[in-house]
Amino acid sequence: MCELLGMSANVPTDICFSFTGFLHRGGGTGPHRDGWGIAFYEAGGYRDFRDPHPSIRSPIARLITDYPIKSHIAISHIRQANVGEVRLANTHPFTREMWGRTWCYAHNGQLEGWQALPLSFYRPVGDTDSEHAFCWLLAELRHRFPDAPPHGESIALWQWLHALCERLRSLGVFNLLLADGEYLYTYCSTKLAHITRRAPFGKAELSDAELTVNFAEHTTIADVVSVVATEPLTCNEEWVRMQPGELLVWRHGKIEARFGPW
Amino acid sequence: MCELLGMSANVPTDICFSFTGFLHRGGGTGPHRDGWGIAFYEAGGYRDFRDPHPSIRSPIARLITDYPIKSHIAISHIRQANVGEVRLANTHPFTREMWGRTWCYAHNGQLEGWQALPLSFYRPVGDTDSEHAFCWLLAELRHRFPDAPPHGESIALWQWLHALCERLRSLGVFNLLLADGEYLYTYCSTKLAHITRRAPFGKAELSDAELTVNFAEHTTIADVVSVVATEPLTCNEEWVRMQPGELLVWRHGKIEARFGPW
Repeated sequence: MCELLGMSANVPTDICFSFTGFLHRGGGTGPHRDGWGIAFYEAGGYRDFRDPHPSIRSPIARLITDYPIKSHIAISHIRQANVGEVRLANTHPFTREMWGRTWCYAHNGQLEGWQALPLSFYRPVGDTDSEHAFCWLLAELRHRFPDAPPHGESIALWQWLHALCERLRSLGVFNLLLADGEYLYTYCSTKLAHITRRAPFGKAELSDAELTVNFAEHTTIADVVSVVATEPLTCNEEWVRMQPGELLVWRHGKIEARFGPW
Repeated sequence: MCELLGMSANVPTDICFSFTGFLHRGGGTGPHRDGWGIAFYEAGGYRDFRDPHPSIRSPIARLITDYPIKSHIAISHIRQANVGEVRLANTHPFTREMWGRTWCYAHNGQLEGWQALPLSFYRPVGDTDSEHAFCWLLAELRHRFPDAPPHGESIALWQWLHALCERLRSLGVFNLLLADGEYLYTYCSTKLAHITRRAPFGKAELSDAELTVNFAEHTTIADVVSVVATEPLTCNEEWVRMQPGELLVWRHGKIEARFGPW
């Protein structure tokens, strides 16, 4: 199984602390040696860094831990290959443009019969079940919503997204991180946990590496930062586990909407 | 004006030498301080690194010069902003997926009346003339060729691409680097020069930095590596300047087809 890491914040925040722990699962404490990637939504833009090599030895991963990129939304993925060989084209996160926004997607799990999901606007570059499902999912959104819903009128879109996630969950395991630059969407099929940090900030201690951070030294009283991961990343905080079939819509570090489980 | 750098090779080749000279134009010897980016097509995949800061001071640019990424095709761009503010979303190269391939695009020049170019499949994320023109160009290709032409039957596609470039050139200055993972397309509106290196390899000396490389030490007799840039990057080799209106199609380091100038 792969590992997922996501962040939503109300101020540009670096994810170095969480990423440091997460990174160790890429060939360190975990068996996820088949590539990794991380994506950032920064002021008016998107970029990602992907490497088909184990994260623990990747010079690019070291750059990310040393060079704090501050973003409102981040998505990271460490891969343990099941469908599709180990190569760059199969390395998450995947991206496509829809409605003039960059959509970013990372998936944990494995699907059956995914080849039958019909494709139209978007086609996979690699050969994973994950990217195929992403291309299908985005096109299904686009067919029903040829243009982005007006701001504040996204409920129907989110309901449709939830229905599509449920459809994918019926094909196997489908834990999802998805973002469009404004919202982070997290959907749980089997395993996702989250934590929201806000004032008064305290100390956090990584589970996977010997590192403690005192968030009070790095934040202001107004900051709200939420982190979502396959497994809790810290050992001294209370993480909330998502329910199978649950979709959370995050904005500015807070849960804006919740759908399911049904 | 921005600066362009492209490479096509018949073996995975690192672009560190050329990029080192090119990099110096990003706030060093040149006035191009408004961001930079570089894209690589590696075995079965694509990745790019983009930074809205001057390349000469960018830790990510230093990573690229120190960590040799070997690719068949590379495209790099250093930006001097004219249309669109300095931010990540306006930083070249731009990418979109078409026919299950990642298309990468970088533009040097400035267009007039570009807002009137109609958009359909693809929409800009940022607000540059360059990205708008890219979205238009790719959709025009896709409308005429809903699927990729069969291998070896791409002449009609390339002719159409050349006609579209000519249309864009009529709107101003349009020097282009475009790639689809197999081919590198270079179109000259005002300024592009190229060089092909093959056995017997010799020494090359950068124009923009004190660096000399002896390619004979880094290559085999079968290697063919071509570099395309806004201005010649070395001072002791013969570069060929492209003609306005000329489109070259590169594959494996060699010119596969030539269109125009008309």
